[in-house]
Amino acid sequence: MRETWVVGAASNRFGRMPESGREAAARVALEALDVAGLDPKEIGYTFVSNCFGIAERQAHLGPLINTALGIPDVPSCSIESACSSSSAGLHEAFVHVAGGFEDAALVVGVEKLSHLDTLNATSYFAMGADYAFETRNGATFPGLYATLAHAHRQKFGTREEELGAVAVKNHANAALNPHAHFQKPITLETYLRSPVIASPLRLYDCCPFSDGAAAVVVGAREKHPRPSAEPLVIRASARSGSIADMHDRTTLTGLPATRTAADKAFRQAGLERGQVDFAEVHDCFTIAELMALEDLGFYPAGGAGRATTEGETERDGRLPVNPSGGLKAKGHPVSATGASQVAEIFEQFNGRAAGRQVPKAEIALAHNVGATGGSCSVHIFGRR
Amino acid sequence: MRETWVVGAASNRFGRMPESGREAAARVALEALDVAGLDPKEIGYTFVSNCFGIAERQAHLGPLINTALGIPDVPSCSIESACSSSSAGLHEAFVHVAGGFEDAALVVGVEKLSHLDTLNATSYFAMGADYAFETRNGATFPGLYATLAHAHRQKFGTREEELGAVAVKNHANAALNPHAHFQKPITLETYLRSPVIASPLRLYDCCPFSDGAAAVVVGAREKHPRPSAEPLVIRASARSGSIADMHDRTTLTGLPATRTAADKAFRQAGLERGQVDFAEVHDCFTIAELMALEDLGFYPAGGAGRATTEGETERDGRLPVNPSGGLKAKGHPVSATGASQVAEIFEQFNGRAAGRQVPKAEIALAHNVGATGGSCSVHIFGRR
Repeated sequence: MRETWVVGAASNRFGRMPESGREAAARVALEALDVAGLDPKEIGYTFVSNCFGIAERQAHLGPLINTALGIPDVPSCSIESACSSSSAGLHEAFVHVAGGFEDAALVVGVEKLSHLDTLNATSYFAMGADYAFETRNGATFPGLYATLAHAHRQKFGTREEELGAVAVKNHANAALNPHAHFQKPITLETYLRSPVIASPLRLYDCCPFSDGAAAVVVGAREKHPRPSAEPLVIRASARSGSIADMHDRTTLTGLPATRTAADKAFRQAGLERGQVDFAEVHDCFTIAELMALEDLGFYPAGGAGRATTEGETERDGRLPVNPSGGLKAKGHPVSATGASQVAEIFEQFNGRAAGRQVPKAEIALAHNVGATGGSCSVHIFGRR
Repeated sequence: MRETWVVGAASNRFGRMPESGREAAARVALEALDVAGLDPKEIGYTFVSNCFGIAERQAHLGPLINTALGIPDVPSCSIESACSSSSAGLHEAFVHVAGGFEDAALVVGVEKLSHLDTLNATSYFAMGADYAFETRNGATFPGLYATLAHAHRQKFGTREEELGAVAVKNHANAALNPHAHFQKPITLETYLRSPVIASPLRLYDCCPFSDGAAAVVVGAREKHPRPSAEPLVIRASARSGSIADMHDRTTLTGLPATRTAADKAFRQAGLERGQVDFAEVHDCFTIAELMALEDLGFYPAGGAGRATTEGETERDGRLPVNPSGGLKAKGHPVSATGASQVAEIFEQFNGRAAGRQVPKAEIALAHNVGATGGSCSVHIFGRR
C-alpha cells in the first residue's frame, strides 16, 4: 500500500448558492486542484457526491464535472452514503491511490436544496433514514436525534447547558470561518431562549440546511514529491456500518458505527486517542458532537458534556473540536460535509485558518456520520 | 495486485417487482452469496447501486441491505453512474479486493420504478442526461439515441433491417432466459410494423422500463481456493468517460467512452478482440448494440449491421452477443443492468444457461454504458 496524501482541498462558502450544483462543484474542484498545484489532466478518477442531485433533476454528475475540468475521458462515479457521502468518496479515492490504481484522484461533494421549500428539503434529507420503518411513520432527523438525546440525558444526566455549550463554541468558531453558513457568535442565553424543535433539542441544537461544495485532491506520495502546499498524510481511512434502524439497536446513547470505525482507524494509524491534536466531528445536532467525542474514545461515555462546558474542546482547549464551526454553524450541505471537514484540516495544517487556527496541528481526525449512524467514516491525518 | 474473481452472481426476474427495492436487493444478494458458498460475514464491503431509489423515498440503502444480511457492521456506499452504476460498483469492488483492502466484496444493483406512471419514470431516466442542455430542452433517451441512429445511418447507410435484426436476435435469446422481462420471440415483420417512437427508432428498437435486481460477489483468489462454482477471473476492469453532452462531441456515430474503456481493458487483459468468445453489450436501443460492437473493436465502423443480419452475433455465430437477451429484451432496471450482465456470464461459464448456452465460454466481455456514453465500463472475464 502506497503512502497517500491529501495534496489539495477547497470549500466554497456554505449557505445559499446562486449557481447550480454542477457549477459550484466544478469551481471548487478547480480551486482544490489549484491549491494542489496539479493540472486536471493528472487526475485518474473522479468521485462525486451529490445525494440529492435529483432535486436539481441531475444524476450522473461525474462526466459533467470532468467535462468542465477539461478531462472528459477520466472515469467517474457518484458515491452516496447519506451525510457521510463525500468521506465515503474520499475512502474510494484513498483505496484507488494507495492500491496503485491511480496516482491522483479527485473527490467533490456538492449539495443544493435551497431552491426547494423547507418541507420538501426535509423530505429529501429524511431519505437517509429508513423509509419503511422510520420516515413513513413521521420520523425525521430532528426527532430521531432527539430520541438519542433523551436516552443520553436519561442515562448520564446530560444537561441543557452542556448541549448549549456545543452550540456556543461552534458558532464562535464559525464566526471566524469565511466558509461558514452562520458567521455570528451566539450566547448561552440566546440558545436557551430558542424554541424547542424536537424535545429536548432547540433550534440552536440543529444544523441548518445549507448549499455548499467542497473538494479534496488525493495523490500518491511517490508521484508528488514536491507538493505545492503542506499535504495531509492519510494515516487511516476507515469506514463502518451499523444496524440502520434505531429501534433495533441495543444502545441509544451513542452510535455503534462510530465506535467500530474509530477502532479500525486508530489501529490503522498506529496512534492513541491522546495523540490527536484536534478533530472535526459530525455535529448535525449538538448531542451528536457529545456522542461522537465519547464514541471516538476521547471521553468516557457521559463525559463529553462536562468537558465541553469546561472549555476543553474550544480552540485553545485540550482537544479543539470543530474549529471550522462544524455542521452546526459552518453548515451541512449533506454531500459536501465530509470533504469540507478535510478542507478545514488542510487549512489548519497549512496555517491558513487565520483567527480560528488551532495551536497544534500535527495529527487530526475527521468523523463523518451517515444518517443516524447506519454509516460512519473516520479519517486520521498526520504530517509527512 | 491480487488475482480477483467473481465467485458468485445472481439476478431476479426482470419486469415488475411486487416487493420493494431493498427487499429484492437483499434477496438477490443472499442468492449470489449462496452461489458463491460464502457466509455474509466474509463480505468486507458492500457496493449498492440504486440510481432512482429516491422514487421509493429511500437513499442510504447499504446499511439496510447489510442489516438484512446480518452484517450491519460492514461498511457500504452507493455507487451511481447512470445506467452503468453497478458495473461502476463492480469496479470499486475489484479495486478493493485486487488492492488487498478486502478479501471479498458484494455488489448489488436494484431499481424499481414500476409504481410510477410512465411520464414520471421517463423523467427519472432522463436525469442521467444533461439537464441544463438536454433534458430541460425536451431531449430524453429515445430522442438522443435516435440522433445517434440518424448519424450512423447517414454515414454508413445503416438499414432498418439491420436494427431489426438486433431486436429479433435479442428477443429470441430472452425467450430462453428465465430472468428476462420479455420472454417471447418476435419476427422482423413485427419489428417493422411497430410504431416509430423517435425516428428512426421503433418501439422494438427500445429497451423497456424494468424493475430488477442483480448481485455479484467478488473475492480474492488466494482467499477462495475452492470456490463453490466456477469463478470468473477478472482479467480487466476498465472505466472511461467522455464529453457528457452529445452536441459537444466530434463524432455521433459511436461512443468515445466505449473506445477508450475497451482499449484500456484489452491492454489490461493482454488479449486481442478475436479471443473473446461472447459478449454482453449495452443495447438500450438496437443502434447502441451496433455502435458497441464497432466501438469495442469487434467490427469496423459501419460493419456491425451486416454482421448481425448475417447471424454472426447469434448464439451459434462467430461472436454471440447478448445471449441473455440484452437490455433490449432481458430488460433494463438501470442500476441492476451491469451486475446482471455479469450474472449472465457467470451462468454461461458454469454451463447453467440451458437453452441459451453459448458454444464456447472461456473469455467473455461485459460492456455497460452510462446515459449516452458519458461513462462506460468494460470488464473482461476468463477462466482460472
